[in-house]
Amino acid sequence: MSKTFHDLNPSQRILLGPGPSMVHPRVLRSMATPVIGYMDPDFLAIMADVKDLLQQTFQTENDLTLAVPGTGTSAMEAAISNLVEPGDKVLACVQGYFGERLAEMGERHGADVTRLARDWGDVFEPKAIESAVSEGEYKLVTLVHAETSTGALQPGISAIARACHQAGALLVLDCVTSLGGVALEVDAWDVDVAYSAGQKCLSGVPGLSPITLSARAVKAIGDRSTPPSVFYLDLNLLDRYWGSSPAYHHTAPTSTMYALREALRMVQEEGLEARLARHMANAKRLWDGLEALGLTLWVEDESLRIPSLTTCRVPEGFDEAKLRARLRDEFNVEIAGGFGPLAGKIWRIGLMGESSRHEYVTLLLGALRELLID
Amino acid sequence: MSKTFHDLNPSQRILLGPGPSMVHPRVLRSMATPVIGYMDPDFLAIMADVKDLLQQTFQTENDLTLAVPGTGTSAMEAAISNLVEPGDKVLACVQGYFGERLAEMGERHGADVTRLARDWGDVFEPKAIESAVSEGEYKLVTLVHAETSTGALQPGISAIARACHQAGALLVLDCVTSLGGVALEVDAWDVDVAYSAGQKCLSGVPGLSPITLSARAVKAIGDRSTPPSVFYLDLNLLDRYWGSSPAYHHTAPTSTMYALREALRMVQEEGLEARLARHMANAKRLWDGLEALGLTLWVEDESLRIPSLTTCRVPEGFDEAKLRARLRDEFNVEIAGGFGPLAGKIWRIGLMGESSRHEYVTLLLGALRELLID
Repeated sequence: MSKTFHDLNPSQRILLGPGPSMVHPRVLRSMATPVIGYMDPDFLAIMADVKDLLQQTFQTENDLTLAVPGTGTSAMEAAISNLVEPGDKVLACVQGYFGERLAEMGERHGADVTRLARDWGDVFEPKAIESAVSEGEYKLVTLVHAETSTGALQPGISAIARACHQAGALLVLDCVTSLGGVALEVDAWDVDVAYSAGQKCLSGVPGLSPITLSARAVKAIGDRSTPPSVFYLDLNLLDRYWGSSPAYHHTAPTSTMYALREALRMVQEEGLEARLARHMANAKRLWDGLEALGLTLWVEDESLRIPSLTTCRVPEGFDEAKLRARLRDEFNVEIAGGFGPLAGKIWRIGLMGESSRHEYVTLLLGALRELLID
Repeated sequence: MSKTFHDLNPSQRILLGPGPSMVHPRVLRSMATPVIGYMDPDFLAIMADVKDLLQQTFQTENDLTLAVPGTGTSAMEAAISNLVEPGDKVLACVQGYFGERLAEMGERHGADVTRLARDWGDVFEPKAIESAVSEGEYKLVTLVHAETSTGALQPGISAIARACHQAGALLVLDCVTSLGGVALEVDAWDVDVAYSAGQKCLSGVPGLSPITLSARAVKAIGDRSTPPSVFYLDLNLLDRYWGSSPAYHHTAPTSTMYALREALRMVQEEGLEARLARHMANAKRLWDGLEALGLTLWVEDESLRIPSLTTCRVPEGFDEAKLRARLRDEFNVEIAGGFGPLAGKIWRIGLMGESSRHEYVTLLLGALRELLID
């Protein structure tokens, strides 16, 4: 007798973790649209819309702007595997888990990686990166804009990009938790590679991950002496598929593309400025509320906190995993714990995209009050 | 003024190309289920169901059985990038586009690749592979079970696997177009790595791709002296996430996972044997009908044709791309043209999963009659 499998019926959660965020019913419904072929003119038109909307959201005119067919980590690896050739020197700025993941990927792809490190929760003085990049002949500098593992927002990107270019290096910026929720201006700041994920501040569903490359970065790929090792993430081949004379490379994730288009359309309808203001307003509401409960935020300087991802210390004497399980089981609310050196020490609370709503902040604060104080 | 983007409303197509195939409304509806977190116990239970159902479908007890978070090409690259270390010798059996793609991936990952080639549409005499593998110290043999670019089905997998093992090599088998539509017995045939895609004979949606590894293949990964270069596709890390003490590696494509589970549940409900019989019955209907229209099938030997993917010669004097466009625009039917050496020469007609239905065969044959003869 083989096991029988019941109808799909997962619990309905309020997603206040580091992603996926809540998905609007409009976006969910878009995925019930029948699937069409990856070379169908109607599908290519949908991809053209997605590209246009991504350029608006990244605030760039970069022609090489597309969605990598995988989750955020695949976009990170597309950046690294296309730009690194074995032996290339990379300056990896590490102030948390994702900065370290970039360094590790560089090493896996054969780069000579130098780490510039800060404690988890700190950010870099832009001058520190400016001086480090001028001291070595780096091809790439990797940096995380909004470090999801710590809640800290790196300032001074524009100045850092300028210093990278003066030293002949390219700046790769991880924007997984910032795009669509935190100010990010790819062209004005002159960032060479920026990538993100569909399921965070954009509130699409996981499985497609935006990336954009400057002309400088495209030229660096063109100047390679060997093809990138990863065929699946080869940006030349991906861009050919997304371009004006599309050629087969992979079968695009149709339904996820429908969802991304609808989510980006909602970003456009709201307007980027209004969207960032909403993220900030709900973040402040959360920060004030957590402090009113006697909790301490991990990033002390308010100007260095990520509006879409807040970290706070677990109060003394509480088992954080047990409390998170109670939030989930009793309130259907998801938040996350800490990674690595911050495991057991912090909670990570995401207010991203559709999850950034007044009512969810009120619910979470009420639930925490019941669990911690009442 | 920024451009406005209309409501999503692609044409409704009958998908009779090489995938994606038609998706059942049950599967489409499953994606409207609200998204939950990738570490939520409810989501981990869904993944456990998917693993169990994949083992049934692959006919294997392999513990390392999971769905790679990308399209079929990502599963192919997971196989190659985890098993190849620079300098490893690979015997690539190339009888079409996907056999060649495997060879190219091997080269990109630094393997010393020897190609054993046949004309596109031919298959290998098992003895030819058995003798080639015994002549070199190969670590891997790559082979395509059902070559989507030619319509030819490779016989004798079990004997080929035995010869590979006698020679100390592992057999990597591309089952993208066979799993769920054509007989495939991973354990009985002793295949070391088999991978597929969600959107072909399984009729899920693109974005998750099944893979399974024998204990022998898992050991080969464990014996590597360097970590696989591709972090995103690192099978040890993916397996840890899919395992009994899940650890974060990537944000799983939630909605696509819902769809894959529902699609696999439908495979189980139909029963594998009945499903294969349905694919064969509709294929025969198509083959007979095409021949009755005076068309010639590309693979002459009926026993070497893939039931889920038929290739036929474009009749003399017709512009194949124009005819395909008319099929699409006048009948909303998608079929595909040929690749590489077969471009302009053949059509590729997929009857995969939900696309393998009597009524679609009748529609296609009727439309071809109107376009070619009436």
